[in-house]
Amino acid sequence: MQSTVIAPSILSANFAKLGEEVDNVLAAGADWVHFDVMDNHYVPNLTIGPLVCEALRKHGVTAPIDVHLMVQPVDRIVPDFAKAGASVISFHPEASAHVHRTIQLIKSLGCQAGLVLNPATPVEVLDYVLEDLDLVLLMSVNPGFGGQSFIPSALDKLKRVRGMIDKTGKPIRLEIDGGVKTDNIAQIATAGADTFVAGSAIFGQSDYAGIVRRMKDAVAGAR
Amino acid sequence: MQSTVIAPSILSANFAKLGEEVDNVLAAGADWVHFDVMDNHYVPNLTIGPLVCEALRKHGVTAPIDVHLMVQPVDRIVPDFAKAGASVISFHPEASAHVHRTIQLIKSLGCQAGLVLNPATPVEVLDYVLEDLDLVLLMSVNPGFGGQSFIPSALDKLKRVRGMIDKTGKPIRLEIDGGVKTDNIAQIATAGADTFVAGSAIFGQSDYAGIVRRMKDAVAGAR
Amino acid sequence: MQSTVIAPSILSANFAKLGEEVDNVLAAGADWVHFDVMDNHYVPNLTIGPLVCEALRKHGVTAPIDVHLMVQPVDRIVPDFAKAGASVISFHPEASAHVHRTIQLIKSLGCQAGLVLNPATPVEVLDYVLEDLDLVLLMSVNPGFGGQSFIPSALDKLKRVRGMIDKTGKPIRLEIDGGVKTDNIAQIATAGADTFVAGSAIFGQSDYAGIVRRMKDAVAGAR
Amino acid sequence: MQSTVIAPSILSANFAKLGEEVDNVLAAGADWVHFDVMDNHYVPNLTIGPLVCEALRKHGVTAPIDVHLMVQPVDRIVPDFAKAGASVISFHPEASAHVHRTIQLIKSLGCQAGLVLNPATPVEVLDYVLEDLDLVLLMSVNPGFGGQSFIPSALDKLKRVRGMIDKTGKPIRLEIDGGVKTDNIAQIATAGADTFVAGSAIFGQSDYAGIVRRMKDAVAGAR
Amino acid sequence: MQSTVIAPSILSANFAKLGEEVDNVLAAGADWVHFDVMDNHYVPNLTIGPLVCEALRKHGVTAPIDVHLMVQPVDRIVPDFAKAGASVISFHPEASAHVHRTIQLIKSLGCQAGLVLNPATPVEVLDYVLEDLDLVLLMSVNPGFGGQSFIPSALDKLKRVRGMIDKTGKPIRLEIDGGVKTDNIAQIATAGADTFVAGSAIFGQSDYAGIVRRMKDAVAGAR
Amino acid sequence: MQSTVIAPSILSANFAKLGEEVDNVLAAGADWVHFDVMDNHYVPNLTIGPLVCEALRKHGVTAPIDVHLMVQPVDRIVPDFAKAGASVISFHPEASAHVHRTIQLIKSLGCQAGLVLNPATPVEVLDYVLEDLDLVLLMSVNPGFGGQSFIPSALDKLKRVRGMIDKTGKPIRLEIDGGVKTDNIAQIATAGADTFVAGSAIFGQSDYAGIVRRMKDAVAGAR
Repeated sequence: MQSTVIAPSILSANFAKLGEEVDNVLAAGADWVHFDVMDNHYVPNLTIGPLVCEALRKHGVTAPIDVHLMVQPVDRIVPDFAKAGASVISFHPEASAHVHRTIQLIKSLGCQAGLVLNPATPVEVLDYVLEDLDLVLLMSVNPGFGGQSFIPSALDKLKRVRGMIDKTGKPIRLEIDGGVKTDNIAQIATAGADTFVAGSAIFGQSDYAGIVRRMKDAVAGAR
Repeated sequence: MQSTVIAPSILSANFAKLGEEVDNVLAAGADWVHFDVMDNHYVPNLTIGPLVCEALRKHGVTAPIDVHLMVQPVDRIVPDFAKAGASVISFHPEASAHVHRTIQLIKSLGCQAGLVLNPATPVEVLDYVLEDLDLVLLMSVNPGFGGQSFIPSALDKLKRVRGMIDKTGKPIRLEIDGGVKTDNIAQIATAGADTFVAGSAIFGQSDYAGIVRRMKDAVAGAR
Repeated sequence: MQSTVIAPSILSANFAKLGEEVDNVLAAGADWVHFDVMDNHYVPNLTIGPLVCEALRKHGVTAPIDVHLMVQPVDRIVPDFAKAGASVISFHPEASAHVHRTIQLIKSLGCQAGLVLNPATPVEVLDYVLEDLDLVLLMSVNPGFGGQSFIPSALDKLKRVRGMIDKTGKPIRLEIDGGVKTDNIAQIATAGADTFVAGSAIFGQSDYAGIVRRMKDAVAGAR
Repeated sequence: MQSTVIAPSILSANFAKLGEEVDNVLAAGADWVHFDVMDNHYVPNLTIGPLVCEALRKHGVTAPIDVHLMVQPVDRIVPDFAKAGASVISFHPEASAHVHRTIQLIKSLGCQAGLVLNPATPVEVLDYVLEDLDLVLLMSVNPGFGGQSFIPSALDKLKRVRGMIDKTGKPIRLEIDGGVKTDNIAQIATAGADTFVAGSAIFGQSDYAGIVRRMKDAVAGAR
Repeated sequence: MQSTVIAPSILSANFAKLGEEVDNVLAAGADWVHFDVMDNHYVPNLTIGPLVCEALRKHGVTAPIDVHLMVQPVDRIVPDFAKAGASVISFHPEASAHVHRTIQLIKSLGCQAGLVLNPATPVEVLDYVLEDLDLVLLMSVNPGFGGQSFIPSALDKLKRVRGMIDKTGKPIRLEIDGGVKTDNIAQIATAGADTFVAGSAIFGQSDYAGIVRRMKDAVAGAR
Repeated sequence: MQSTVIAPSILSANFAKLGEEVDNVLAAGADWVHFDVMDNHYVPNLTIGPLVCEALRKHGVTAPIDVHLMVQPVDRIVPDFAKAGASVISFHPEASAHVHRTIQLIKSLGCQAGLVLNPATPVEVLDYVLEDLDLVLLMSVNPGFGGQSFIPSALDKLKRVRGMIDKTGKPIRLEIDGGVKTDNIAQIATAGADTFVAGSAIFGQSDYAGIVRRMKDAVAGAR
């Protein structure tokens, strides 16, 4: 099994002092920086692009930066993020006409490749590319829309994808994004996730270290 | 004539400490914050969206935020920027099927409205909407592409639009964006601009106050 | 099992006197009004929009109005139909980037939500959203194209979806649209449908009541 | 000069009894039926398509049906409307990649061809096609958006296009659509319009004949 | 089992003397002409269209021309290829909103119909249309991108689709395209393919007849 | 004045022996090879792409290849044609969001840049880029549609653009495409064209040299 990773989404951070925010959350024990990119086309919102990613690297961030592309099309912007210092680049299969090709493109640029499944996306999209992936990200809310809580059917999907990954025998991460909190993370870990995106559950709070520790403890207890 | 406005583009600022950067440039005498929004569709780049604008307001920025939308379509994101604290919202006529309507939408949300002309865009696009505008922005480089210098034909266009604005008798600003530097700003002001976007000419330098002062002096000498 | 519903499609009605047509078909025993919306993008035809739906409500129609959106994208027009008096709003999963979200949007506006499967669409699109649905609509002709008869493979798909619905234990309707006639409706009912769209089979005929009765009798005999 | 034409827009009619509504307004002295087609892409609304046009012809309407296509793209749906009985088909130049070709297509199908200018559209779009047109339609509100009143700059545009038409010496109609009422129609006629679309100004009222007569009288007084 | 077909892709031929090239490769024992159509939208390349197909027919080519449409949308260009002499027309299900309808369209024009699966496309897309098809084409490289070798997971997919085809009992061809060479064709045939596209493996070589013979011998040995 | 150039369009050549056809027409006195690229999106047809251009260069063609891109968007395919040996690359302003940028891109790759005006396109699109161009191409038929004859209003447009070019004092070519024949070429030359595309007027005939000579003689007589 993969080690546990807590990946705070910087969308919930204070963008007026982003370097400091990221430094603090990493010092508090977070493992990755989750970086949500929206283009106002694949989702009805526009967030941040490669220049913000690059600024974090120049600021001195060395932790993995986990880029979730909620953009369509995908391929043109992939090299920009690779150059800007992304570690993992994940995308939605519905947003690329050539899913296998996009995965190869990401890997050819030295990044890890992930595929993201929306709440309604069937798991069959993984059938012929799972072994090429470094990460599968399951959305437990709808990307790009606010004010949602964890969608329960994501637990079943986690179990099913967990089984598919285990069958490959490969170290593919299973990440979950949406409504993850200290009080449901154990259940989510039990269903099979090893990598956890958290937004306002961390950045919106006062004690980053305490929350990250409680999340990791809960996961450890569940596995 | 309108007062002179120097509007540094935050695309050239350090995004790891954006609040501090903006505070410094405003303290150095800059008048507006120029905010370049790219969506990876209207232009081949993706930059920053409403949540960064909102973060600047929460950080305490009270200067006008001058949002240049390089996005297509335009209307859906306008209310997001109005809510996030934008003062001026400008867009490209090619990017909106209903230019007059988009102008009314911006104004109905309490913002000022601007229209942006690409280097090749004919000035006739202003014929039936100029009097409804608060600002005309002429691009003197191609938006969304790097490494360009001031396009000379923009001077002719400035003169022509200056004449059109003067004829209305209305306080419509004439802004220029692209390749503006201390050594050509006088010529640009002479051609008719009153509002000047500067990117790396300010944020890339060490002495913000000195550059802003030299720019304003050059403009004052030219008018 | 759900009660039997006969839903005449108003595309086959006389649009010069639509209120009277709908009154007559409901008086003849039809249960729902089926309302086919085409936008000339998702399908190569353009039919009728919210204002026609609203006119039926103002005319006094109180029966359920069953709106089938053959449009892409979907979300923008959903509130218009909710406001215009739609009872059920169904859409195609290929036409919405965020299927789960669109379902929630429909339900949040007080309507029932349906998903429509084209003749070639695999049933796996239902895997993670079936329990959120009020209705599944299977197309037994290609939507938006004229002159087609019932596609036989729809019977197999009906059986498979019937099984999936029964497994949920929820009162989800299974609707069929395309080539339904008095002489094949029994077979279709046996395969699992409980809600039947009929176009020219009803509105094109002289005796509405006789046809509706024969359809209902055939279904009753088959169940 | 062309004869005066009053063309009530059926978007304001009661769609539950459209045939009767149209009969009444024509009996009241209206000259043309104005038919507004929206596709939820060129404008954010979806209204009515060819089958409603065809129903009016089958109902017995013999007056000219003046179809205003607020759709994009244009060409595919033109033959559908020609077949459905349209007399004039007008479209927006921004919505067709090949404006000259679309005009020829409309005329080749036996219909008259019109070009529609949005409030912000420059008149130069007419420069090389005006002589091929049967009608120019100037929008004095933004098409597809509700609750607007007559945009004053349309008067200047009417005068300019009036001059362009007169110079051709051809019987090209100049139509106006948006906010036309009994109290401003004289001013609009003076500016050069000969064909007047009216929506709620007619269908929303009780005395169709009275309003049509007052409009025609006002136009006659102005010319 | 279907007879073996070797189908050289003319994208690797010399376009300055295409008729002669095709004559030679057919004389050398090749069975079909494979014709790759790219539109710079579905894939990032633009190749050849109907007029080249028609030129081959006029030149005297009587062998089947096997058109692979890497275009989106699909339907508009289908009649052009049918008229230009295509024998088989295959398309990607992701590129047509109405897959079942496009298959019927192809067949109604007297051509055979094929569906193409990209490397990542799940086989469930075949579930409700397989029996309507004359051919299934599996891509073992990503269409439209150069410099790729045979993707190993295509062997598993071949076996699975082979099973699906055999279950129908119908003479549906199973074609493979991408990285097919004399040294792997036996393995590919064993996995279930009966129709083999070869590009530079044939046209790039000096001895067409020798290579075609070696390919056929290898397939014969494997079956 | 520029020298006269006759540029036969290879769309009318025999694609089964294209190298020979082009050799013959050049030997017969034609100056350039006109290369029409259609992508089935900007126009409803798909013709030939970079690999055909490259084949002509490999075949030994050294005459200028004059590429007319009837594609949208434009920028992605420009480098492909530059690499394939194009001499001039022309595009439609409606097809590129950044006309000035596309011109610079073409020139940065060592090609000459042209802008193409459709029959209805106003000449104002040239106002701020004419001096950057090597060629202006006026369409005297609608690109991508068959069976058309020379549109008379193109003569007026030729005169107007001729005046604009002369005013720049730069050696910018003025090309005409559509319905050019031996019996109207003199009139077209008088209106200002110096570069003439001819399709079936040359390739469809038996005596290439005779026709080219007659065309050149007619132009010489007219200038």
